[in-house]
Amino acid sequence: MSFAARLAETAALTEAHLLAAIAAYPPGTIRDAMAYAARGGKRLRGFLVLESARLHGLSDAQALDAAAAIEAVHAYSLVHDDLPCMDDDDLRRGQPTVHVKWDEATAVLAGDALQTLAYELLSRASAAPDDAARVALIGALAQAAGARGMVQGQALDIAAEAAASPLTLEQITELQAGKTGALIGWAACAGARMVGADPAPLAAYAAALGLAFQIADDILDIEGSTEKTGKRLRKDEAAGKATFVSLLGLDGARDRARVLVGQAEAALSPYGDAADSLRQAARFVIARDS
Amino acid sequence: MSFAARLAETAALTEAHLLAAIAAYPPGTIRDAMAYAARGGKRLRGFLVLESARLHGLSDAQALDAAAAIEAVHAYSLVHDDLPCMDDDDLRRGQPTVHVKWDEATAVLAGDALQTLAYELLSRASAAPDDAARVALIGALAQAAGARGMVQGQALDIAAEAAASPLTLEQITELQAGKTGALIGWAACAGARMVGADPAPLAAYAAALGLAFQIADDILDIEGSTEKTGKRLRKDEAAGKATFVSLLGLDGARDRARVLVGQAEAALSPYGDAADSLRQAARFVIARDS
Repeated sequence: MSFAARLAETAALTEAHLLAAIAAYPPGTIRDAMAYAARGGKRLRGFLVLESARLHGLSDAQALDAAAAIEAVHAYSLVHDDLPCMDDDDLRRGQPTVHVKWDEATAVLAGDALQTLAYELLSRASAAPDDAARVALIGALAQAAGARGMVQGQALDIAAEAAASPLTLEQITELQAGKTGALIGWAACAGARMVGADPAPLAAYAAALGLAFQIADDILDIEGSTEKTGKRLRKDEAAGKATFVSLLGLDGARDRARVLVGQAEAALSPYGDAADSLRQAARFVIARDS
Repeated sequence: MSFAARLAETAALTEAHLLAAIAAYPPGTIRDAMAYAARGGKRLRGFLVLESARLHGLSDAQALDAAAAIEAVHAYSLVHDDLPCMDDDDLRRGQPTVHVKWDEATAVLAGDALQTLAYELLSRASAAPDDAARVALIGALAQAAGARGMVQGQALDIAAEAAASPLTLEQITELQAGKTGALIGWAACAGARMVGADPAPLAAYAAALGLAFQIADDILDIEGSTEKTGKRLRKDEAAGKATFVSLLGLDGARDRARVLVGQAEAALSPYGDAADSLRQAARFVIARDS
């Protein structure tokens, strides 16, 4: 199967699993808004979960709770990040954001419930082969998503907008390691955690991949189209915010992303050819147009 | 030890444990806002965790992760509930609310991170005697806190404000079972879940206790003082919202709360005298002035 076909397949599986979990909630606005926010996207994080699980001998079916869980956390973070008091975005995945389609209260609550859903999914008996692995996944997700991971990255990002001087390359790297890197890291390591294997090679892969992903995002923000990305672009430039592109230039940013992809591929050497799909994911991350 | 002394002791233990967990995060606004939101309050939910743990042979030290976890979820729900797009409150526990002291973005993120912290605490090795119990606590918390528990109750509460006609007694009872009952239920059952015992008697106790708690809150909203409760009162009346008091009258509400406390006490009969402290908690809930 080609990489594109596998990515599309895992995205469909993950989204169906996530939507089925949401459909089990009581009917109403919150459930509708959760399902709305859970639709669409590349599902890169879910793909990483399924591929790292496969690398450790687990089937897609055995990894779908974890794949849906990380996409639930990602969806929650986007819903809250789009709020007027945060990034104030009206377009996401080509659709009106949740607070535009409904209202801010619905966006706050639907985001809250999407975060809760992630832990509900990971506490299921089907989420990992044993309780120890379930606890390891949950503990690692709480580390990645909270005030020393994703939320801390988002807070640094908001603080940067109010700061008198633009961030340095080192500060942006730290910010992005939290804001996007932490969840990508959790996703790539999930398969190892499910079977109690050492996640270190996958963590190294994900650290390089996450940074390459963010650099590619910054390049897309300059060169991409709203039609293809489904979101408003060039907001960072308008706000005078430092990005990898503003600090390195377009060519410099492209070079840096290519070096990182090479590092990501190299980190997978312990797994041999079995990790080819993850290598392709690294190349995809800097070649995508959405 | 008197009930009041035991309540004060458990509140101090739980708050210290929660603040220590927050202090381990990277310094910054989010950590400060989390600690600010985590201070104060009666800590009834933490008390219920510690007492139900003691009832099942566990020490305070063995139950503090769970007690701090439920208080973290409670604190997160208050921070988000106080936002301008939700209940728009400027005073909580006698202090300016988080979005007043900082800003809305900080309140959204600090609330998000407090929810994450709850799952971090419950995934610790010290949270329960074994992994199966940790997973049981986490799964039950995700059920109680999400879109079929607390968040659903909050959504019904917000929908009620926009509704053309006030809620019926049945609808308010359902709303409160989610909004306040679900976390109280989790707290009361925590000790049983930690040792794999049947939580049914504690669940019955908590269902009656949670409803009595809410009726007492509605009475306090009419008869209480902002000085003692630390929050703005009589907002429901001004908004024309149905409450237990508006539907049953003050005397009727008091009678109903007393009946519920009797039911809560009766539900504890399987535990004999060992549950006296939980019986005192039920009586306290309707006698408090804050």
